[in-house]
Amino acid sequence: MERYDIAIIGTGPAGVSAALTAKNRNKSILLLGSRQMSEKVAKAHEIRNYPGLPLVKGADLAAAFREQLDGMDIPITESRIGAVYAMGDYFALQAGEEMLEAKTVILATGVVMAKTLPGEEELLGRGVSYCATCDAPLYRGRTAAVIGYSPREETEAAFLAGVCSRVMYFPMYADRTDLPETVEVIREKPEGILKAENGLLVKTAAGEYAADGVFVLREAVAPGQLVPGLETDGAHVKVNRKMETNLPGVFACGDLTGTPYQYVKAAGEGNVAAISAAAYIDKKTKE
Amino acid sequence: MERYDIAIIGTGPAGVSAALTAKNRNKSILLLGSRQMSEKVAKAHEIRNYPGLPLVKGADLAAAFREQLDGMDIPITESRIGAVYAMGDYFALQAGEEMLEAKTVILATGVVMAKTLPGEEELLGRGVSYCATCDAPLYRGRTAAVIGYSPREETEAAFLAGVCSRVMYFPMYADRTDLPETVEVIREKPEGILKAENGLLVKTAAGEYAADGVFVLREAVAPGQLVPGLETDGAHVKVNRKMETNLPGVFACGDLTGTPYQYVKAAGEGNVAAISAAAYIDKKTKE
Ligand SMILES: Cc1cc2nc3c(=O)[nH]c(=O)nc-3n(C[C@H](O)[C@H](O)[C@H](O)COP(=O)(O)OP(=O)(O)OC[C@H]3O[C@@H](n4cnc5c(N)ncnc54)[C@H](O)[C@@H]3O)c2cc1C
Ligand SMILES: Cc1cc2nc3c(=O)[nH]c(=O)nc-3n(C[C@H](O)[C@H](O)[C@H](O)COP(=O)(O)OP(=O)(O)OC[C@H]3O[C@@H](n4cnc5c(N)ncnc54)[C@H](O)[C@@H]3O)c2cc1C
Repeated sequence: MERYDIAIIGTGPAGVSAALTAKNRNKSILLLGSRQMSEKVAKAHEIRNYPGLPLVKGADLAAAFREQLDGMDIPITESRIGAVYAMGDYFALQAGEEMLEAKTVILATGVVMAKTLPGEEELLGRGVSYCATCDAPLYRGRTAAVIGYSPREETEAAFLAGVCSRVMYFPMYADRTDLPETVEVIREKPEGILKAENGLLVKTAAGEYAADGVFVLREAVAPGQLVPGLETDGAHVKVNRKMETNLPGVFACGDLTGTPYQYVKAAGEGNVAAISAAAYIDKKTKE
Repeated sequence: MERYDIAIIGTGPAGVSAALTAKNRNKSILLLGSRQMSEKVAKAHEIRNYPGLPLVKGADLAAAFREQLDGMDIPITESRIGAVYAMGDYFALQAGEEMLEAKTVILATGVVMAKTLPGEEELLGRGVSYCATCDAPLYRGRTAAVIGYSPREETEAAFLAGVCSRVMYFPMYADRTDLPETVEVIREKPEGILKAENGLLVKTAAGEYAADGVFVLREAVAPGQLVPGLETDGAHVKVNRKMETNLPGVFACGDLTGTPYQYVKAAGEGNVAAISAAAYIDKKTKE
């Protein structure tokens, strides 16, 4: 398996900027995210403070990012990373059922303001899971509930349906679902997760649903969840001016490192993170 | 005289970004620099890592910055700031013979790698000066030598000629000079400044020239020189992640705060500095 120099997680301005600069530094890059780039870019109406692009529409900025990466031969790998593990002299990144490898990792995942559900954090690891791929085997032949915050999560629910005896899916969005018949779609808003005698309960306004495992699937997981051992400050990752985290070889940039939440701040930090990651690799190579 | 909310010194990517964001925050801005923007932008051949502008030429990026400022009604005041003084609840900025006022200051002056001349730093304030406007009165009716690093300094030499009895001008560039006859142009490269019995000596390969005052005029002065009391680290200003310096109300961004020297890093920091300056003003107003 190819072991990349730098894995960059996220395709917002922070991740794109890191990728461009890492490429300029002749590093091999694994850029993980989406060809839609970032919702927070694409959905902006008109941006008034991105230097060099007067009154640019968010959709146009996202398109410019995508074309720029294409023009520099930087492919986007459309995977969501569930976890990053330090393996000594490299990192293993869990992308669905696949494991990817890189010498350094740049976190550029943005922040998601989603409130957690009552009970969610307390029961995490005790029936509540953020990663279908990681924890499906625990619920083989048993009942799983999936609380999905975007249509992207339907793939995960479908995957679980092949492993569990019963899968209930609670969409947290209004769009129509597109799921195999083996998945029961329940259009009731979960209000919390409770511990029962035997497993868990998903509580909605209309009732309670028993499950052995509850998968809460959101666009972003908390950074400390994504990278075990990472020093965080609430929803943010602690970094210094070089964008180094407390874990050697792991860098962070963009909204993830704290306010202000701004495009060019994110892009500037991505640039610094890439230069720091490249310097880290060069130093290691010399040792 | 108008007292601006935010004075921004420098029109490179850091200063431009700060100006755009400060304007978005509804602050009154005094943007000081040049309509040429920045030499370091305009002279770049092709930029490969500015997110959103693939393979942009430096001259085109400079033009984009200028048009963006024009479009947002942000005028550029073409002045060079010689010194910034903390006056209690505002700052006074020396622009030639004029004094300008602002509640906060964002330093975005870039860094200039020019080596100082032997003797220059030791004799600073003891005959050597970086500011003709500030120190001309000390040499009224006496002899001054001007070491000018760019044709822009010729105005300063001409001004001194109206005050001093004799002015020698040492151009550090090849261009033709355009000076009044009262200024003696000496085409010999200064190699150092020496202390003599009675005043100073400018030493060249060909000889030594006695002067009461020696003005060394470069594009940029050292940041600690520009803002007395500013905490620096070599050529860089010390800042935290909010771009705050040790002086309340003074912020810094871009190359001036340290490596990496990069466009989007500078622009990102300008954005953060503007948000911090706006927050500083808002907090003061409430007090
Ligand atoms: C409507 C709107 C308007 C805005 N207007 C402005 C404005 O005018 N000016 C301004 O400066 N800022 C504005 N912002 C703020 C700006 O959008 C953010 O600061 C910026 O997008 C942050 O960039 P980022 O790269 O850090 O993160 P994001 O842009 O959030 O990108 C994060 C990326 O990481 C991906 N990701 C997350 N987790 C994973 C994972 N585990 N695996 C793989 N990929 C993952 C996401 O899918 C996403 O692509 C606006 C925001 C919104 C929502
Ligand atoms: C040839 C070249 C190519 C480069 N290529 C790249 C590249 O491909 N990618 C990249 O990311 N970076 C590149 N760089 C680096 C980049 O140019 C700098 O990092 C960037 O310009 C720094 O921006 P800044 O706003 O901090 O300062 P600057 O761009 O240096 O701007 C400082 C401004 O402040 C003004 N100023 C200074 N003192 C005063 C004063 N006392 N009063 C009023 N105004 C003042 C100056 O005149 C200038 O306008 C390149 C640099 C050069 C020289």
